[in-house]
Amino acid sequence: MVSRMSSDHDVRETFRVPAGPVELTGIDPRDRPTGPKDKDAAEEAMAELAVRLDTLQEALYAEGTGGGRRSLLLVLQGMDTSGKGGVIGHVVGLVNPQGVHIASFKRPTAEELAHDFLWRIRRQVPPAGRIGVFDRSHYEDVLVARVDSLVAPDVWEARYDRISAFERELSEQGVTVVKCMLHISPEEQAERLLARLDEPAKRWKYNPGDLDSRAKWPAYREAYEAALERCDADVAPWYVIPSDRKWYRNWAVAAILAETLADMAPVFPAPDFDVEEQRALLKESVVR
Amino acid sequence: MVSRMSSDHDVRETFRVPAGPVELTGIDPRDRPTGPKDKDAAEEAMAELAVRLDTLQEALYAEGTGGGRRSLLLVLQGMDTSGKGGVIGHVVGLVNPQGVHIASFKRPTAEELAHDFLWRIRRQVPPAGRIGVFDRSHYEDVLVARVDSLVAPDVWEARYDRISAFERELSEQGVTVVKCMLHISPEEQAERLLARLDEPAKRWKYNPGDLDSRAKWPAYREAYEAALERCDADVAPWYVIPSDRKWYRNWAVAAILAETLADMAPVFPAPDFDVEEQRALLKESVVR
Repeated sequence: MVSRMSSDHDVRETFRVPAGPVELTGIDPRDRPTGPKDKDAAEEAMAELAVRLDTLQEALYAEGTGGGRRSLLLVLQGMDTSGKGGVIGHVVGLVNPQGVHIASFKRPTAEELAHDFLWRIRRQVPPAGRIGVFDRSHYEDVLVARVDSLVAPDVWEARYDRISAFERELSEQGVTVVKCMLHISPEEQAERLLARLDEPAKRWKYNPGDLDSRAKWPAYREAYEAALERCDADVAPWYVIPSDRKWYRNWAVAAILAETLADMAPVFPAPDFDVEEQRALLKESVVR
Repeated sequence: MVSRMSSDHDVRETFRVPAGPVELTGIDPRDRPTGPKDKDAAEEAMAELAVRLDTLQEALYAEGTGGGRRSLLLVLQGMDTSGKGGVIGHVVGLVNPQGVHIASFKRPTAEELAHDFLWRIRRQVPPAGRIGVFDRSHYEDVLVARVDSLVAPDVWEARYDRISAFERELSEQGVTVVKCMLHISPEEQAERLLARLDEPAKRWKYNPGDLDSRAKWPAYREAYEAALERCDADVAPWYVIPSDRKWYRNWAVAAILAETLADMAPVFPAPDFDVEEQRALLKESVVR
């Protein structure tokens, strides 16, 4: 078990965005640089990861109830259909939902726009002991905001440093930040969008606006590259997850989460009561 | 499949609190009046229920994205160790966490106490398309508040009608309310508390205050009986779940949830776009 865990231990290194200029065209969305080679192997690996994640999450939650201040924040970004919802269902869904805090960031409301772009984000920082998940995030403010010129260039330009400072601040507060960019190919996106149109039970997921973003694919790629390059940090690493295969994507995110939680090494709090005394009191407590 | 579903269809009737005076001593916490007779059978039944729940929850969520206003609220009540957290992990954990809204009601804060007792509750009513879960609820205001005389008798006395009116209002808003009282025996509670003391990884769940509530078991039973009797309604039914066996408890709540969702019959929203047109546009959309 120990040897398996240490051999798993390079998953994060494998997917960590490389230092220096980032070129997404150089990363194959069907790549499988480590881990399971097929769906069956992934299923087995996921069953093991589920146990590890469940145990680690419970310990983190327990630590939080005992006064611990730490939490974990998983940021999910990616083009439409890249699988942000799928990761929430299949990876985050492996742990007790009571310990999870999910926030979905859609087009900002009028109230949100009246505030600094980080205002709505700060309100959703996971409390102590929780695993927070951002389905889209503050990165939208340097992605769609940049691609669609929702703000002037000097405004979005200044945000990269703001974001890096914010994430450093989170880390100092005890929030371990993990950021996953779900990397798909435009061909795979076309297939997934088509599947949403073809299957009546999937049509609700389809939005004609998705085609507008799709048409701006190169501009988005450039914006993603800038975000990955300028906002990667040891305290808030970016991982690029090859996501054309759903099973591989889920395995990779689960493995990164498990390694990150294992490194956090959450501890069950020591009892603030006398165990022997309580045991004696309990044994005396006869209910009629 | 249809016959199985219709034969399952009396699960709610079986566990619905009987009309008239409620006597909890007359309901065996180890009873298995319907459904699986052992753990293996329960595991099989749960695998089937997981699929049904997942499908139904997705449809409810989809309905909500299409403008539907309906949601479901599962209220969990029960003495310490009765399994509220276990139900959240093992039953609510079966569906996509993105569609779930969990609220835990602990001892009210100063701000909450400065408001009407339903103020903090209303803030957590599940939004459209969601499954809301209350881990404890407004019923604490006629349980611990009554048993520990936190308010005067005329105050808690008036709350039963306030609660019934509130739940009627929820129903009129489109919130389907399902209330489960997890019914355990004091002997089973003693065993579970002891297990929490014995196992270091469970000690964080132990609270010496639990023994105080335990000492007031008869008063709590009376308070539960009053709540079950006075706040049961067709629009917000109370179910009493025999909970000394965890696997039976989980199965029963899952079956009640599945039946309730099936009755709601959530529908995938019709597309508000021309499917053929989008398909054509998509096929034209070549990304370089």
